[in-house]
Amino acid sequence: MGMGRFIVLEGLDGTGKTTQIKKLAEYLESRGEKVHITAEPTDFPSGRLIRRVLSGEVPSSPWSTAALFLADRIRHCTDPVDGIRRHLEAGETVVTDRYYFSTFAYQGYATDLRWTMDIHYSCPELLRPDLVLFLTMSPEKCIRRITANRAADAIEIYENTEALTKVSRQFDKVFELLRDRENVVYIDADGTVEEVAERIRAAL
Amino acid sequence: MGMGRFIVLEGLDGTGKTTQIKKLAEYLESRGEKVHITAEPTDFPSGRLIRRVLSGEVPSSPWSTAALFLADRIRHCTDPVDGIRRHLEAGETVVTDRYYFSTFAYQGYATDLRWTMDIHYSCPELLRPDLVLFLTMSPEKCIRRITANRAADAIEIYENTEALTKVSRQFDKVFELLRDRENVVYIDADGTVEEVAERIRAAL
Repeated sequence: MGMGRFIVLEGLDGTGKTTQIKKLAEYLESRGEKVHITAEPTDFPSGRLIRRVLSGEVPSSPWSTAALFLADRIRHCTDPVDGIRRHLEAGETVVTDRYYFSTFAYQGYATDLRWTMDIHYSCPELLRPDLVLFLTMSPEKCIRRITANRAADAIEIYENTEALTKVSRQFDKVFELLRDRENVVYIDADGTVEEVAERIRAAL
Repeated sequence: MGMGRFIVLEGLDGTGKTTQIKKLAEYLESRGEKVHITAEPTDFPSGRLIRRVLSGEVPSSPWSTAALFLADRIRHCTDPVDGIRRHLEAGETVVTDRYYFSTFAYQGYATDLRWTMDIHYSCPELLRPDLVLFLTMSPEKCIRRITANRAADAIEIYENTEALTKVSRQFDKVFELLRDRENVVYIDADGTVEEVAERIRAAL
């Protein structure tokens, strides 16, 4: 059995990644593929620690948070029971909600982008995605969608328009730097669920 | 007020690091210095997660564990309340039980030594020690001292003679590679507490 495809969805909060991943999985399954959906931070202890950091419960510096993401991501790729590699080797298509590009955008902005990239690309345990789908939307619209969907106290630390604008520009910078290294497709996420799903299917 | 000195004690388990750190602190305090004793893994959430990994409670790979140590170490250096940098800036002498050399020895052996070094030395948040005291003792003697002092179920995963011999050789390799980069003094830890304490005082 051949290796499955490894697909990453990236984008600001509010761009509809979670919904689109479900739609994408349904489509791939309708074509007979077995699909494994996953996300970062993971549900491993390292991912749960990162969630406590992102919610503000556990203090951290962005440098330390970047290293936590690296640790969590290595486990995500290599866990012998539920890791991405194991699923790909079983011939499944793996779709993850966020991957190292998010660390480059969020922590890379607050620390040193080159450092966050180097500690990842020098690690042979991390898998290179076959396809990266970057969902784009204006930060203002992202915020409107986030605040419409959640209690105010569930808004995470990155979620204000000014911060999202910086992260959005950092994503652009990241993908520009990685142009020759990664297979990235920009997807306009402004539209109905069905319109965006169709754009994603066209990109496959 | 000037910056305090940053002193690291390294060595296999059983070499008496904890006892010698207490003796060293007493000596420095008797000379009028204010001393801050600390250790890795830390008591921050990242350090507590590492302890669960080392005890075998939480599965991890050595690559992921190395990244967790990096995250914990950055917090150890930079925490605004109790970080090493804060104590040094207050003019205190900081003595830590283990630092990045342990990651190079333990995880560097199981992964790629160059990678473990690169992810640390490329991070500007980590402090370079003024002095590294490496306590040396034969792995056989370390094991005898460990088993005499602890319940059998408290023996951690690295603590058997074959593993300790490999780690001991890896420490030698690490310090050889870092000869021009770090100020390392080998201390013969085979002797009475007072004899070893005197060797450490002579090295200061």
